[in-house]
Amino acid sequence: MSRSRTQVAIVGAGPAGLLLGHLLRAEGIDVVIVERASADYVLGRIRAGVLEATLTDLLHRLGIDARLNAEGLPHDGFYLSDGEKLIHIAVGELTGKRVTVYGQTEVTRDLMAAAPERGLEVVYQADDLALNAIETDAPYLTYSKDGVAHRLDARFICGCDGFHGPSRKAIPDSAGRTFEKVYPFGWLGILADVPPCDDELIYANHPRGFALASMRSQTRSRYYIQVPSSEDVADWSDDRLWDELTIRLGPEAGSRITRGPAIEKSIAPLRSFVFEPMAYGSLFLAGDAAHIVPPTGAKGLNLAASDVAYLSEALAGFFRRSDNDGVAGYSARALARVWKSERFSWQLTTLMHRFPASDAFDRRMQQAELDYIAGSEAARKSIAENYVGLPL
Amino acid sequence: MSRSRTQVAIVGAGPAGLLLGHLLRAEGIDVVIVERASADYVLGRIRAGVLEATLTDLLHRLGIDARLNAEGLPHDGFYLSDGEKLIHIAVGELTGKRVTVYGQTEVTRDLMAAAPERGLEVVYQADDLALNAIETDAPYLTYSKDGVAHRLDARFICGCDGFHGPSRKAIPDSAGRTFEKVYPFGWLGILADVPPCDDELIYANHPRGFALASMRSQTRSRYYIQVPSSEDVADWSDDRLWDELTIRLGPEAGSRITRGPAIEKSIAPLRSFVFEPMAYGSLFLAGDAAHIVPPTGAKGLNLAASDVAYLSEALAGFFRRSDNDGVAGYSARALARVWKSERFSWQLTTLMHRFPASDAFDRRMQQAELDYIAGSEAARKSIAENYVGLPL
Repeated sequence: MSRSRTQVAIVGAGPAGLLLGHLLRAEGIDVVIVERASADYVLGRIRAGVLEATLTDLLHRLGIDARLNAEGLPHDGFYLSDGEKLIHIAVGELTGKRVTVYGQTEVTRDLMAAAPERGLEVVYQADDLALNAIETDAPYLTYSKDGVAHRLDARFICGCDGFHGPSRKAIPDSAGRTFEKVYPFGWLGILADVPPCDDELIYANHPRGFALASMRSQTRSRYYIQVPSSEDVADWSDDRLWDELTIRLGPEAGSRITRGPAIEKSIAPLRSFVFEPMAYGSLFLAGDAAHIVPPTGAKGLNLAASDVAYLSEALAGFFRRSDNDGVAGYSARALARVWKSERFSWQLTTLMHRFPASDAFDRRMQQAELDYIAGSEAARKSIAENYVGLPL
Repeated sequence: MSRSRTQVAIVGAGPAGLLLGHLLRAEGIDVVIVERASADYVLGRIRAGVLEATLTDLLHRLGIDARLNAEGLPHDGFYLSDGEKLIHIAVGELTGKRVTVYGQTEVTRDLMAAAPERGLEVVYQADDLALNAIETDAPYLTYSKDGVAHRLDARFICGCDGFHGPSRKAIPDSAGRTFEKVYPFGWLGILADVPPCDDELIYANHPRGFALASMRSQTRSRYYIQVPSSEDVADWSDDRLWDELTIRLGPEAGSRITRGPAIEKSIAPLRSFVFEPMAYGSLFLAGDAAHIVPPTGAKGLNLAASDVAYLSEALAGFFRRSDNDGVAGYSARALARVWKSERFSWQLTTLMHRFPASDAFDRRMQQAELDYIAGSEAARKSIAENYVGLPL
């Protein structure tokens, strides 16, 4: 058994864990990140690409922003489509803020590349990873690496290991409460190296179902359509998917689609999930380990960023100023913002998708809400301020 | 058979029919209103009491506003309560407009009193009232009064006869479409001659169910609580109801309740209902004859007022300028506003009530929305602009 010690052990080297690691290192706190997968596997996950200032501000503050500055696309607005007309949400004008289109994978890559020079140790491919003694002041991780057993002692463990990771599961059932909503459909996504059909994102509520025109860069497009949960991706040739997108995005945007072979094509389920509290003993949860939002509105990564911002402040207070209030208050502070983002994601999902169980009245409520949004600056501003990210 | 002729025959002498009658008389158009009930019965119906400027502007224009000006209470805001804190919706500040608290019964009384001097004929207690030949240009009403059969010919018939009246039912099923949502609860209301517990209205989402503190004047209070649809009003003594209100309105407002004997106590169901189109042949529908909103947000009477405003403009165009566009476009124009009010009433009902089928996630969505509203001016402004009434 190889044994070592650090101040904060982080479980998971996705964007949440890496960002937290860098923020803590910037405060002079000792950190080790332990990840079950390989670096390549982590980078292979295709995820969101719309970053709130909540997240980009942290990357700027850390100075891990050279590629973000060069390649990130500032977006001042987006569209909602009701199947016929496009409703512009002029985010920049309405809020004075903007979002940045830059792939989550790229954020992870940048944070990963900057780790060695900043003394941020990341252990990849840690097998049999387990959290121990989290209810005490002396928690520790155990794992094996290349056949050697390791024990990593720490003052705190931060679970940034996603929905399926071991951190949340280490908390006894009796100490937590889960809230969940599963939607009766999924998103079939395609990634292709073609220019996007518009400079801005388009969320469309079409009679055949939801569609989203998104992008990762000016030469890489990301599109999605709503499909039944039971759908098999094998039934969707590239052509069939491009045809469907052309219809659902409407005559204007649909006609501007450039087709190309899929780099990636997959179906993701939609889920709202929150675990409370986000702290137990010496363990803190951040990001998908504690909560999932449906992807409508792109809040998942951004919510992980606000968790990590709160948590790094709390831990800096603890280690640098012997201030316990931050760590004691972390869960409540993070959850207040989590629930508001859950609400926004749920509401935008409900507004923009076709639900199998909805009746003619429900459908008219969607149309009336879109008509109201089209005519009300207050309604558009409310959407815009959520889209750019509520204040920390 | 006694036979007479007019330009516009109005079915129903509630506030919608009387207001339409006065507006048409002001344009020099001949009108007769035919009502199945007695004047006393019409005045005995206890209804809403929060008037948008949409309605009060019409009353001012008609000059039927002496008592409204003297007794109406201008309200610049109202409260949402989440069971603990009160969230103020500063309607006046946010929109530059206000609402007026003045009972629907009083509006009806004023319109009724002004009818004779303005040549507005109202026939009460018309039995066996029926609409005939509405698909032609020569529709007519038939009814009997004091045992004598009457026929009233007109160019148009306007159905202002409420949800249960004969007008909507005269339209063939194949020519219309209904949209409906029935809520799994009702409102138990009490009217009492006691001062209200607050200067403004309070809508409360309490764990025991919704409550509303409203008023008709500075000495007459109107309170409601959400009850199961199956509830029997006989099970609610005045004391039990005051006790329940005291709890649901929360420690602050609840402690300021002044109790008194009920003048009226009844349970009303909650329903969202829209019939499309609002015109068929020579028949136009206005108000509750075409649509019902749940009472949350007090849109019912105000929506009747906007229907009647559109309809009087359309008929004035027809009779005074031989302009057919107004009457041809009435249904679409009225429905655009109807659906937005339906949306607002449905959304405020959904936000503020406890639904038997809702789960822990739904409940958190309500709380998150209330928290978001408390912190967002854009969200409060969106509610406020709907509450004072969207522009005609």
